[in-house]
Amino acid sequence: MIQFFAPDIESTGILPDSESSHCCRVLRMKEGDEISVVDGKGGLFKCIIVSANPKHTVVNILSVERIKKEWQNEIILAVAPTKHSDRMEWLLEKIVEMGVDKVVLLRCRRSERKDMKPERLVKVMVSAMKQSLKANLPELEEMTDFNKFVKSVDPGVQKFFGYCDDSVKRNEFGECYHKDSSVVVMIGPEGDFSPEEVKMAMESGFIPVTFGNTRLRTETAGLYAVAAIHVLDNLRK
Amino acid sequence: MIQFFAPDIESTGILPDSESSHCCRVLRMKEGDEISVVDGKGGLFKCIIVSANPKHTVVNILSVERIKKEWQNEIILAVAPTKHSDRMEWLLEKIVEMGVDKVVLLRCRRSERKDMKPERLVKVMVSAMKQSLKANLPELEEMTDFNKFVKSVDPGVQKFFGYCDDSVKRNEFGECYHKDSSVVVMIGPEGDFSPEEVKMAMESGFIPVTFGNTRLRTETAGLYAVAAIHVLDNLRK
Repeated sequence: MIQFFAPDIESTGILPDSESSHCCRVLRMKEGDEISVVDGKGGLFKCIIVSANPKHTVVNILSVERIKKEWQNEIILAVAPTKHSDRMEWLLEKIVEMGVDKVVLLRCRRSERKDMKPERLVKVMVSAMKQSLKANLPELEEMTDFNKFVKSVDPGVQKFFGYCDDSVKRNEFGECYHKDSSVVVMIGPEGDFSPEEVKMAMESGFIPVTFGNTRLRTETAGLYAVAAIHVLDNLRK
Repeated sequence: MIQFFAPDIESTGILPDSESSHCCRVLRMKEGDEISVVDGKGGLFKCIIVSANPKHTVVNILSVERIKKEWQNEIILAVAPTKHSDRMEWLLEKIVEMGVDKVVLLRCRRSERKDMKPERLVKVMVSAMKQSLKANLPELEEMTDFNKFVKSVDPGVQKFFGYCDDSVKRNEFGECYHKDSSVVVMIGPEGDFSPEEVKMAMESGFIPVTFGNTRLRTETAGLYAVAAIHVLDNLRK
């Protein structure tokens, strides 16, 4: 089953450019064909094509279903983009498949990459949402200064950061996380968080954690964190 | 810290071609420089370069340390290679970083890719081992027929397979796995295991499981499974 993405489908009944092209040019769908469309906000629409235009496909909505996400609380991953953008794209694809609510791109003192355009990442996220048959598109927050981010997290949210340096006492993430409230995990850049950032994070209530006993790359730590949240949420006890 | 890989370092004292080139050409190391070398079998060798030849670097071993892997029992992932080989390379890189003992390439009835050369995958594994400062290189078992593999697993090993079809009753992986013995997880191809394969797996003692509540790609399911094993092993209780 193929899902199309049209954020404004409910108000306009129109597939955007790229989705119209995919639908009519690549898949050669025609007037009268039925398709599924998601709006990224939980809406899953059964539609029938009334004008199969490859730039501007018009549909009639037959039915609407409101899809709840498969996990309970908010999962937010704040991550310093890696030097190579493909590693970030993979990370985002994988965590959207597993399930995440928001990704924040962090600008840290030791970031090798101080900026990252969101367009390509959003495309990857849309495609992973469609692939994994979800109807909710996670939010992507553009490059945000570390200092600003650590102070911005809502109270009541569990706050963690991965840190590699043995100078700070840390526990394993799975021992600290509990599944009863929303969670933010921060993952630092290739060169790790700076000592000033660690201090600031801890003063803002972030708890330093490890992800297993081995040295993980930035994107692997992010994957491990999101997987761990789902693994622990899915335990009955 | 950079680690070099030389499987026969202990008996020969020589870095292989590609490692010699990396050492002498790329990093411009010279006679008298100290380097770390792992043999992929747990040996970590402090060495001093005595001949900095970019094809054939000779070292003297100063000291040896036997590194134990960071987890206790054997973790085996048997996975049907994805159509696109880069997805397999990513999977292997990530699970070597997290920790795995053996990867088996499965040939299934619905596999889109019936063969996969191991050379490139082994390179990725070596590089991930070095990157994550491990001294043990996981074993890669070349393409193996599904039928042969399911019958070959040692008794006493926990056996699971991921399956997407609702026709078979399944529990969440984390509810079934326990950390007291070795484990094999099988992940099927893009088109899933065939009903005959599911039957055969269950007759051979494999337990069907889910990885979260969402549809995951082959490589994401593999990642989730290996991450889950480490997350659960790292819980104290």
